[in-house]
Amino acid sequence: MCRWLAYSGEPIRPALLILEPRHSLVAQSLNSPLGAETVNGDGFGVGWYPSTGIEKPEPALFHSIEPAWHDENLRELTRAIESPLFFSHVRAAAGPPIQQTNCHPFRHGRWLFMHNGVIAHHARLRRDLMLALDPELFPLVHGSTDSEVVFYLAITYGLQEDPIAGLGRALRRIEEIGRAHGVPETVQGTFAVADGETLWAFRYSTSHRSRTLYYSVDIPTLQGMYPEVERLRLFGAEARVVVSEPLNDLPGAFLEVEEATVLTLDADGFREEAFLREPA
Amino acid sequence: MCRWLAYSGEPIRPALLILEPRHSLVAQSLNSPLGAETVNGDGFGVGWYPSTGIEKPEPALFHSIEPAWHDENLRELTRAIESPLFFSHVRAAAGPPIQQTNCHPFRHGRWLFMHNGVIAHHARLRRDLMLALDPELFPLVHGSTDSEVVFYLAITYGLQEDPIAGLGRALRRIEEIGRAHGVPETVQGTFAVADGETLWAFRYSTSHRSRTLYYSVDIPTLQGMYPEVERLRLFGAEARVVVSEPLNDLPGAFLEVEEATVLTLDADGFREEAFLREPA
Amino acid sequence: MCRWLAYSGEPIRPALLILEPRHSLVAQSLNSPLGAETVNGDGFGVGWYPSTGIEKPEPALFHSIEPAWHDENLRELTRAIESPLFFSHVRAAAGPPIQQTNCHPFRHGRWLFMHNGVIAHHARLRRDLMLALDPELFPLVHGSTDSEVVFYLAITYGLQEDPIAGLGRALRRIEEIGRAHGVPETVQGTFAVADGETLWAFRYSTSHRSRTLYYSVDIPTLQGMYPEVERLRLFGAEARVVVSEPLNDLPGAFLEVEEATVLTLDADGFREEAFLREPA
Amino acid sequence: MCRWLAYSGEPIRPALLILEPRHSLVAQSLNSPLGAETVNGDGFGVGWYPSTGIEKPEPALFHSIEPAWHDENLRELTRAIESPLFFSHVRAAAGPPIQQTNCHPFRHGRWLFMHNGVIAHHARLRRDLMLALDPELFPLVHGSTDSEVVFYLAITYGLQEDPIAGLGRALRRIEEIGRAHGVPETVQGTFAVADGETLWAFRYSTSHRSRTLYYSVDIPTLQGMYPEVERLRLFGAEARVVVSEPLNDLPGAFLEVEEATVLTLDADGFREEAFLREPA
Repeated sequence: MCRWLAYSGEPIRPALLILEPRHSLVAQSLNSPLGAETVNGDGFGVGWYPSTGIEKPEPALFHSIEPAWHDENLRELTRAIESPLFFSHVRAAAGPPIQQTNCHPFRHGRWLFMHNGVIAHHARLRRDLMLALDPELFPLVHGSTDSEVVFYLAITYGLQEDPIAGLGRALRRIEEIGRAHGVPETVQGTFAVADGETLWAFRYSTSHRSRTLYYSVDIPTLQGMYPEVERLRLFGAEARVVVSEPLNDLPGAFLEVEEATVLTLDADGFREEAFLREPA
Repeated sequence: MCRWLAYSGEPIRPALLILEPRHSLVAQSLNSPLGAETVNGDGFGVGWYPSTGIEKPEPALFHSIEPAWHDENLRELTRAIESPLFFSHVRAAAGPPIQQTNCHPFRHGRWLFMHNGVIAHHARLRRDLMLALDPELFPLVHGSTDSEVVFYLAITYGLQEDPIAGLGRALRRIEEIGRAHGVPETVQGTFAVADGETLWAFRYSTSHRSRTLYYSVDIPTLQGMYPEVERLRLFGAEARVVVSEPLNDLPGAFLEVEEATVLTLDADGFREEAFLREPA
Repeated sequence: MCRWLAYSGEPIRPALLILEPRHSLVAQSLNSPLGAETVNGDGFGVGWYPSTGIEKPEPALFHSIEPAWHDENLRELTRAIESPLFFSHVRAAAGPPIQQTNCHPFRHGRWLFMHNGVIAHHARLRRDLMLALDPELFPLVHGSTDSEVVFYLAITYGLQEDPIAGLGRALRRIEEIGRAHGVPETVQGTFAVADGETLWAFRYSTSHRSRTLYYSVDIPTLQGMYPEVERLRLFGAEARVVVSEPLNDLPGAFLEVEEATVLTLDADGFREEAFLREPA
Repeated sequence: MCRWLAYSGEPIRPALLILEPRHSLVAQSLNSPLGAETVNGDGFGVGWYPSTGIEKPEPALFHSIEPAWHDENLRELTRAIESPLFFSHVRAAAGPPIQQTNCHPFRHGRWLFMHNGVIAHHARLRRDLMLALDPELFPLVHGSTDSEVVFYLAITYGLQEDPIAGLGRALRRIEEIGRAHGVPETVQGTFAVADGETLWAFRYSTSHRSRTLYYSVDIPTLQGMYPEVERLRLFGAEARVVVSEPLNDLPGAFLEVEEATVLTLDADGFREEAFLREPA
């Protein structure tokens, strides 16, 4: 339903990825060739870990209900800040309401989360999903999206201790609630999680037909493949991106993440692992 | 926390009450002498039953997160439509989020509802309040205010069959949930309810110190008292208003609604009744 | 750059044309097959002459910078009001700023105006265009679009006395200013003008390659052609629409307005006339 | 009509001044004791020179039409960035339109500008003011405020070479245009200008009754006066503020800028000079 992008590496101005590439996230907001919807104009968000000496390690958020393609503040902000780890998301809402509390990424303490996809029959399941939350977390759900509930369920099930296990248990619980309501293929999506140092990107759906997800080949390799592409010199050796669809048309620059897979990105680079492949 | 106004009578342009009086609702949004907060700039709403031959008897809503005093669409709309029964509300939020789904009035089918006041320690109570809802109504709560939950609780407890009993039972249930959480004085507010024909206005708080509420003296009487006031000639004999604070400085034009009272307004005029005066 | 629709006939709820047809204006905001841009998500507007007994004959405006497809107030409003003559417009901006003062239709007294198209090199010409305005009108230009300047130039050149001559002289003046700046093909567009009783729709560009414009076949004829189409029974015999592209796929329901033509619609129906076909 | 604040010194999070003081700019937006209007809820802006290694020396802008007191993005942004020189402004509009292009500060290249006050009878004078602009600058005026025209007039008259002379000549030209239209007391205001290194703050009105303006005593002195005030330890020795009204109640912490005075703040601290005291 949406498109998202996550970056980790040397601190950069987010505009370098969000605004400037041929198929930047903002370009995808107006026209995303691989998206379930081609227009993602129902609000957007940026979440970033500041690179300057802010005392609190918490990420900052910028949420807007305007389309990303015409928001002036987005242009200003992503050119003025620098960040070693940021998320950005453009939304195509299945329905109202369009409001800042429904814009991704979501934040809890030092954790960021975003989602592209859907919990099937969310309205029918919402009460049971909300009841499955840690009661302390219940009043923190300020919006009305399925995605925010997935995030707080993942926290309920241990995301802050073990993000892969936490989100895995949350999705299994959602599938269980779905089946109890006669909804067989409940979960569908790609998910991004970060704690300020590590980034986890998930591709998973109950029916094994998830939205697309790609990650970038490492920059030194890319610079070797395309020595004439000047843009590639703007990035450091550690720069890596996970994204709903490729940001450029360079063959080999982006690799698809397999279905039922989690990608972990830290100082050692990307690591792929099977995710929820065993029967529920 | 807010200011509201409800009108019933001959169809009028809502601007006549919302924009034009000396202490109009829009004037109160910038400066409300009797309010708990003097500025009510955190969004507003208008709900109106159309007077033209619309097939569906449902009221229409206009919600905005801009301050009422500078919203051009509010000016345009309230001068262009006519309605025999409308609500308007300006909000002073205790906190974020400011979003259209948190703007009053709320609507369910042909019912309108609005509230000035607070459910104490709402965040702490919210899970139990939401669990007390009819499960069918749970996914219809789109915003994050206490007021919207009060409305759907009142529907759960029979508002559509008997508004006075329904809201009464809902408030008693809220007080019970409050006591279970160690919150002794849970409910505080004035409430307005309408079904398109009748208007009910409530003043009630657990501690018997509710926000102010006033109703207008009938127009023929007022015209007799103030034959020189031209503005009064703009209103028909049936025009009646209930409002958080008087719209003008004419002595005797507005009468205070007593604590723990419900006012019913229909073709026969106003009727006052005790509301929740017996011990819980 | 935009899409627009103008209706004249028996009072109807604007939603009947703006929201509900297969290719409604709101559907075109997300995907307009014949548009220069396929997405028209940079704000919208509705201007309508009230059908109820409002004393002032001035039209009312509703302007929003949200995309039309997700604006709840647009849905509410266009279902609650009725109007015998209304305009609606969805915008695809060539650039910022996106603001209500740049949303069409524009209003002056009882006149409404909207435009799809462009004045080429507007920034370069703007000073001279503004200087060509009646000085009294200068401070009434609140936005930064080319379209608003065209409107006030047309008023300067007599639109209120003779809309066809007034707009014609304004466009000739704009072409003259363009040529003086070395811009050969200055004007491009379709324009709608109304005074509350009559509707004028223009298709004209300096290079004779204007945006598309269509008008509806009269309803009794259409009902005869398509007796099985239930939707057609919702309209009265006088209902007529002018629109940037057809609202449905019924062959023969919409006829194209020729290049360099003005269509006048009043109680006698449509009348076509050549517009600015003589050499400048 | 507004309130503003300008900071220069060691890089700080703007929240330290915009959000956190007892009488912070955001607090003043809801209630400004010394303001011509007590509520400044008609939009706001922040302009800041980034402290990180951004290649371009241009300041960044954040503009919003929401009231500052409830804007979440303002909170996030001013806590996440750091800047050695920033402006912030909360607006009380004399009238519509409320739009981002009317929010201060304004920017041209590396220059920032903001204004509290008014050009009397602006609508009547606007055409002549706009005509007095360098024709190249004419299309850069995107909003409808008097303040933006003052800024571009000052640029026309040499602000980028000599800010004090440039603004001085612009204000004299405005007074001349005012007199030609029979407006005797045309200029009223306090103005802030910066180029990324130096800050200029002006207090001037034709009638010598300008809005208030204050500057902060230097931090080491203040820390000596108030050794027990912990907040003062958050600021470096170079931290200096110019502001419409004092940010705290510490006697002696803020000094009033005299009428018809310009304050220059650079690495050497504040310098006061007479401004436009000679007869026009």
